[in-house]
Amino acid sequence: MQMAEARRGTTTLEMEAVAKAEGRPVEFIMRGVAAGRLIIPRNLRRKNVSVKGIGEGLRTKVNANVGSSPDYVNLNEEVEKAKVAVKYGADTVMDLSIGDGIDEIRRHILQAIDAPVGTVPIYQAWTEAASRGDVVDVSSDDIFNAIRRHAEDGVDFVTVHCGVTRAAIEALRRSGRLIDVVSRGGSFLAAWIIHNERENPLYEEFDYLLELAREFDLTLSLGDGMRPGCLADASDVAQFQELLTLGELVERAWARDVQVIVEGPGHLPLDHIEANVRLEKVICKRAPFYVLGPVVTDIAPGYDHWVGAIGGALAAWAGADFLCYLTPAEHLCLPSVEDVKEGVIAAKIAAHVADLAKGIEGKRDDEMARARRKFDWTKQFELAINPEKPQELRRRRPPSIDPNVCSMCSKFCAIKMVNTYLKEKTRDIRKETRGSQK
Amino acid sequence: MQMAEARRGTTTLEMEAVAKAEGRPVEFIMRGVAAGRLIIPRNLRRKNVSVKGIGEGLRTKVNANVGSSPDYVNLNEEVEKAKVAVKYGADTVMDLSIGDGIDEIRRHILQAIDAPVGTVPIYQAWTEAASRGDVVDVSSDDIFNAIRRHAEDGVDFVTVHCGVTRAAIEALRRSGRLIDVVSRGGSFLAAWIIHNERENPLYEEFDYLLELAREFDLTLSLGDGMRPGCLADASDVAQFQELLTLGELVERAWARDVQVIVEGPGHLPLDHIEANVRLEKVICKRAPFYVLGPVVTDIAPGYDHWVGAIGGALAAWAGADFLCYLTPAEHLCLPSVEDVKEGVIAAKIAAHVADLAKGIEGKRDDEMARARRKFDWTKQFELAINPEKPQELRRRRPPSIDPNVCSMCSKFCAIKMVNTYLKEKTRDIRKETRGSQK
Repeated sequence: MQMAEARRGTTTLEMEAVAKAEGRPVEFIMRGVAAGRLIIPRNLRRKNVSVKGIGEGLRTKVNANVGSSPDYVNLNEEVEKAKVAVKYGADTVMDLSIGDGIDEIRRHILQAIDAPVGTVPIYQAWTEAASRGDVVDVSSDDIFNAIRRHAEDGVDFVTVHCGVTRAAIEALRRSGRLIDVVSRGGSFLAAWIIHNERENPLYEEFDYLLELAREFDLTLSLGDGMRPGCLADASDVAQFQELLTLGELVERAWARDVQVIVEGPGHLPLDHIEANVRLEKVICKRAPFYVLGPVVTDIAPGYDHWVGAIGGALAAWAGADFLCYLTPAEHLCLPSVEDVKEGVIAAKIAAHVADLAKGIEGKRDDEMARARRKFDWTKQFELAINPEKPQELRRRRPPSIDPNVCSMCSKFCAIKMVNTYLKEKTRDIRKETRGSQK
Repeated sequence: MQMAEARRGTTTLEMEAVAKAEGRPVEFIMRGVAAGRLIIPRNLRRKNVSVKGIGEGLRTKVNANVGSSPDYVNLNEEVEKAKVAVKYGADTVMDLSIGDGIDEIRRHILQAIDAPVGTVPIYQAWTEAASRGDVVDVSSDDIFNAIRRHAEDGVDFVTVHCGVTRAAIEALRRSGRLIDVVSRGGSFLAAWIIHNERENPLYEEFDYLLELAREFDLTLSLGDGMRPGCLADASDVAQFQELLTLGELVERAWARDVQVIVEGPGHLPLDHIEANVRLEKVICKRAPFYVLGPVVTDIAPGYDHWVGAIGGALAAWAGADFLCYLTPAEHLCLPSVEDVKEGVIAAKIAAHVADLAKGIEGKRDDEMARARRKFDWTKQFELAINPEKPQELRRRRPPSIDPNVCSMCSKFCAIKMVNTYLKEKTRDIRKETRGSQK
């Protein structure tokens, strides 16, 4: 178990791999894992996984959600989405299937990609209950059996909505939200708690959940079932009631050497983001923060991947460690493979610009600047976050007068002009090599 | 003249139109114009213009650049770009043509749209000089004649690179930039100054420029010829040397009742943006700030409209008043009509999320939340920043089981589930009407 080993002062192969990938000493990784500030989600049963570190001091990571819905079930397409997500840079993939054949899709995805895989096992418990009769007819056993089934398959992390408690639902009622609950798992549990007038089993039997997690070194992603679903509901009593509960559960998990991530909003105006990140870091004792977006306006359906990138860049800069992507299909329909690709690219850009601001990255941007100055287009394409896109655009309207420059300014290219006139007089003082801007 | 009238305590029809559009008292607009904190660019000769206010306390405005290059000259396409830009919400359009037929394109655009139009007259002076022989063979008369010609046609604002001085070029030489100059106008003037060993006529004869501006109530947009062209060059001595000059010129313009905007970067990492905006507001005495992007990473060619939206959202929230869009073609080729559309939408989203954070907007987002809660799809499309896009996506994968929800969660829609179970018990306390989140 990563956390237990780290606390004993032992480094694991996973810690070494993360240290190498991040360019950090393995002791830094070990201390981070020991303290819970960073996690390495890897199920003991998972084969062939390229492990990732998520948390303080590491590059911001990106997760892509895939999975079927009752309206569209297509095993091959969901596997293809997972592969495409990894191809374009997703660090992890979550399978959120709620259609038929959940087991099959999950198992194929675990085979098809080497990124850490997450799931939300309660979706399976609930959809199976729905097929038997009603979504509120789920037992505590159904829930834990679903989690075990996913863990046995090798899933590396699972979202568990432990904070959707009776207290959170009372807070929800007081809050007078415009849209009560937009989290699937949150709505399943809220409906169940209200209907059955009982406490959430994931909260009530949290110790049992921890035992299950220990058995597989399963990382728990503490879900935010009460996340706001529109700007008007942002940062309200229901959201923070849940966060307070998650803060307590983080400590209980750490006491049992179980790695945890805390999930966060959701829809937040730009001016709430930093406060939300800092609050999570305080209440949850610097446990890694995993945000969905945040979505910083409600009026841009069709562009929510980019709306999420604006929020995500700011959140990651403020300290969020893990960005869940959004796709253009958010709020509208089940995403296509192309939507997944666009979503991953948007989130990767958000993560990268935040890492630049945090001083973690920079060299690749400087290399791009040098390639631009030299009109080295091959190098520019190589360095691009998606090399296909700039090549496609440049092919569409190639330069016709001077092949070195681009068709925007053509022979009046500023770089070319200044290279010509400034060069002679500045060669003496120019530093031909420059480090990163950091 | 707007500024002269405002300083006399007189309101103009333009101030009244801006007051109405912004939902602000006309006295607020008048005082802002008098102080130079906000501008209403309108050439006295411009017919049929839907005036816009730009500056403190107003909604963030968006500019779209169109125009030909030596590689691609197509009058109809440039006019179409201008129309499409306005259709998707651009507040102003700048014609940056540098191919053949500059006069014709500008005049057609002025006829075709009712948005304020800006140009960069020195492009014309320089391209005409280039066609005669060399780009450095431009006279002071050529420059001012070009400005006059544009003003006589009714152009509402012009970019003038007055800050590209010998001092700025000396600073540029000291700076050791990775990419010296990326501004077209900046490169024209830098090459001219270096070659001719003379001072920039737009700086040296600034008083004459002001007289010309007064004649037409032409707004001057003080260009940033020294803007950084990559993150490594951000916020350096060349950039700030120019900004200091612009700060002096702002006061000289105001002394002659000439409205000014100050242009800013450019390529900036996320953590430089707020400082850049605040510095401009201090050095330029709260003159409106017009930023290009900012572009917050260099490695995303093909996606620079969104990279600019991340930077633009943060800049506008920090106080920038006017966002110049970027298109997917930035750094690659002359944009197409479709690129213009995508660029405008990205910049509009950035402006809107900043306005939300500043408390200027919000009702439309709340209406969207209500429409989502009620599954009122017609209303959701109406309220969308681009209604075509969500309709297209929803059509692609419509819900098959329940037509009210979407195919992402289908019958497991969280909103629907919680509406069902929570409704009865909360009707008593729910506030059915809610104001904005502000």
